[in-house]
Amino acid sequence: MITPQTLRGFRDFLPEDAQKRQYAIDIIRNTFELYGFVPLETPAIEYLEVFTGNIGEDEKLFYKFKDAGGRKVALRYDQTVPTCRLIAQYPDKITLPFKRYQIQTVWRAEKPQKGRYREFLQCDADIFGVDDRSSDAETVALTIDIFKNLGFNRPIAIINDRELYKDIPYKAIVTIDKLDKIGEGGVVSELSAKGYNQEEAVNLLSSVKNSKPNEKLTQIFSYLDNYGMQGNYQFKPTLARSFSYSTGTIWEIIVEGFESGSLAGCERFDSLVSRFSKRSVPGVGFAIGFDRTVLAMDELGLFPPLKTKTKVLVTVFSAELLPESQKVTKQLRENGINTDLYPDPNDKLEKQIKYADRKSIEFVAIIGPDEIEKKSVTLKNLKSKQQITVLQKDLSDVLKKA
Amino acid sequence: MITPQTLRGFRDFLPEDAQKRQYAIDIIRNTFELYGFVPLETPAIEYLEVFTGNIGEDEKLFYKFKDAGGRKVALRYDQTVPTCRLIAQYPDKITLPFKRYQIQTVWRAEKPQKGRYREFLQCDADIFGVDDRSSDAETVALTIDIFKNLGFNRPIAIINDRELYKDIPYKAIVTIDKLDKIGEGGVVSELSAKGYNQEEAVNLLSSVKNSKPNEKLTQIFSYLDNYGMQGNYQFKPTLARSFSYSTGTIWEIIVEGFESGSLAGCERFDSLVSRFSKRSVPGVGFAIGFDRTVLAMDELGLFPPLKTKTKVLVTVFSAELLPESQKVTKQLRENGINTDLYPDPNDKLEKQIKYADRKSIEFVAIIGPDEIEKKSVTLKNLKSKQQITVLQKDLSDVLKKA
Repeated sequence: MITPQTLRGFRDFLPEDAQKRQYAIDIIRNTFELYGFVPLETPAIEYLEVFTGNIGEDEKLFYKFKDAGGRKVALRYDQTVPTCRLIAQYPDKITLPFKRYQIQTVWRAEKPQKGRYREFLQCDADIFGVDDRSSDAETVALTIDIFKNLGFNRPIAIINDRELYKDIPYKAIVTIDKLDKIGEGGVVSELSAKGYNQEEAVNLLSSVKNSKPNEKLTQIFSYLDNYGMQGNYQFKPTLARSFSYSTGTIWEIIVEGFESGSLAGCERFDSLVSRFSKRSVPGVGFAIGFDRTVLAMDELGLFPPLKTKTKVLVTVFSAELLPESQKVTKQLRENGINTDLYPDPNDKLEKQIKYADRKSIEFVAIIGPDEIEKKSVTLKNLKSKQQITVLQKDLSDVLKKA
Repeated sequence: MITPQTLRGFRDFLPEDAQKRQYAIDIIRNTFELYGFVPLETPAIEYLEVFTGNIGEDEKLFYKFKDAGGRKVALRYDQTVPTCRLIAQYPDKITLPFKRYQIQTVWRAEKPQKGRYREFLQCDADIFGVDDRSSDAETVALTIDIFKNLGFNRPIAIINDRELYKDIPYKAIVTIDKLDKIGEGGVVSELSAKGYNQEEAVNLLSSVKNSKPNEKLTQIFSYLDNYGMQGNYQFKPTLARSFSYSTGTIWEIIVEGFESGSLAGCERFDSLVSRFSKRSVPGVGFAIGFDRTVLAMDELGLFPPLKTKTKVLVTVFSAELLPESQKVTKQLRENGINTDLYPDPNDKLEKQIKYADRKSIEFVAIIGPDEIEKKSVTLKNLKSKQQITVLQKDLSDVLKKA
């Protein structure tokens, strides 16, 4: 016998969790579409070289292997890099400017810990082909609206511009990015370890902390005000983002009451497509960390009760009377009512009602000899414990109104 | 520069195709839920041993590799086997009977050809924990209803029972399964190559062809009649299904006008969970080949026009007037109208209207100096070429009715 187990960092989603996830995905998808973004999908497996050289320090986290044909391949590490590959691959099919969204799984060989998995879902939206900062404002507004629509009280986009750092080497940016995690002392000692002397390190950090929004950021803030987003953004000069391809605007989303970090990572990336193409195609957009968002929604109680979408369980009185239950089931489904037919005619009615109760199905329909004679159905509400008799032909209407 | 390319057998889905896929997925998901099935997700990567010994001849098609920790792992090959693993893993959380659906990607190292890819989507539904054939009828009815709801004219479930073969060795079943592909001559010669003499091979095939429905099949047919499925099923004694775990009822879905094979593979599998658990948990259900289904829908013209869900493009008259366009956009989105704001204020109006046209967005809204003075918007229908002037405050209502 094989031990039933999953790999560390990988998860099964049982029905209640799967339903929660679908609820959040539907809201995110609808908000993407409200903003006029169109969907896109890329493969789970790419040539390894698509990802290498783009990601920065974290390339050791690639899920990479050789396929049966000996090709070096990697599982999708993010969705921005494959989309840049795609834009370069279909110059005749992709018209710029291009606003796309993408909701797919990515894989990273992270050390598993609370809220961090090796397989997780990302929800991305990006605008390609526009250098103007109005696109940055449009995507910032979209991130904020998504978190509002998910039910968060006051999501905040913390915003900065990598151009404020243009004289600071990448190795120092990676360290400053850790400020919230390791504190000022930690940053200074890590900078020292990277070759800055103590005074240089302290000055570097202090100049970053005291920098002011540049003209481009001021412009974005005024656009955000036009979108009615006053109170949903903040300049944060110490925000760094460690991706090596980040170029201009960078932002993250934080929410009140959830302390385990930001829920979306967002940036301008003006040279990423040029790794695959001679065309210069600037880009700006974001990735929502879906799993952390679900965790935050759970902690803040933002999910409505979601145990089932099934409205009624049609029970089976006995094997002989199964055909009557099948006919009632057929009629309900034809009227668009989500209907479960109890799957085993040999189980007792009591067990069937328990099954409905455990699955949080609100109604059970009972069709026994009496009911058949009167062409009726006994309809029981498992919440209120009320029980009524309904003519079979009226059952769909009664349930639609219930 | 890196050549932008995808691996053979893997595909990008550009927006129009991605939207088609989402359209079909939504219908399939809704039909699963109409039947009272609940969703489930399993990881993309499992211990290799989860899959080995279950699949039959095709185990050479596994996408398998060693992960960074040296574990032998495989990408999800199907959804039935991982769900059996899951049922064994959470005995306290899964109450039987259990009706679940699953819509996820699977990977097989197939030789790529028309309609056959290395990465594809499967849509499964299964009932676990019930031996009674009423469950078989419920899942057969569900397969038929899905294809009806997708718009197919008269989907047919071709049905057989592996118990009719109980005296025939598995190696012969695998060969008989190829009948539609290689013909009777092909089957006889393959059986001969497997050690049957010519007469035995001919007799074997002829006895299969002439077998009659057993009592269990007759029962299922009568249940299907109760579901109103007369005319949507056919007994097919030569149907075999090559999975080694198939035990009782087997069926596939074929549709008129599409000759490239069946669109769903379906079976009873009563001993699969026992590979992971001491509990005996029978199962019955199916997997829809989503990609082939989309191909069939395309060939038969079953997709409605689906180029975009965006209702209106708000154009940008000039960089100075961008704030007005942003405010109109905000108002439309607040009223739930899918609205694209043209992303580059430096492009000419003509280019912006072409963009809307190419994306099949029906309306463009123009806000120039005249409109701003009158607090109005010029609304142009790109299909009818009609143009009207609307007060800004009435724009949402006008578009909702359009």
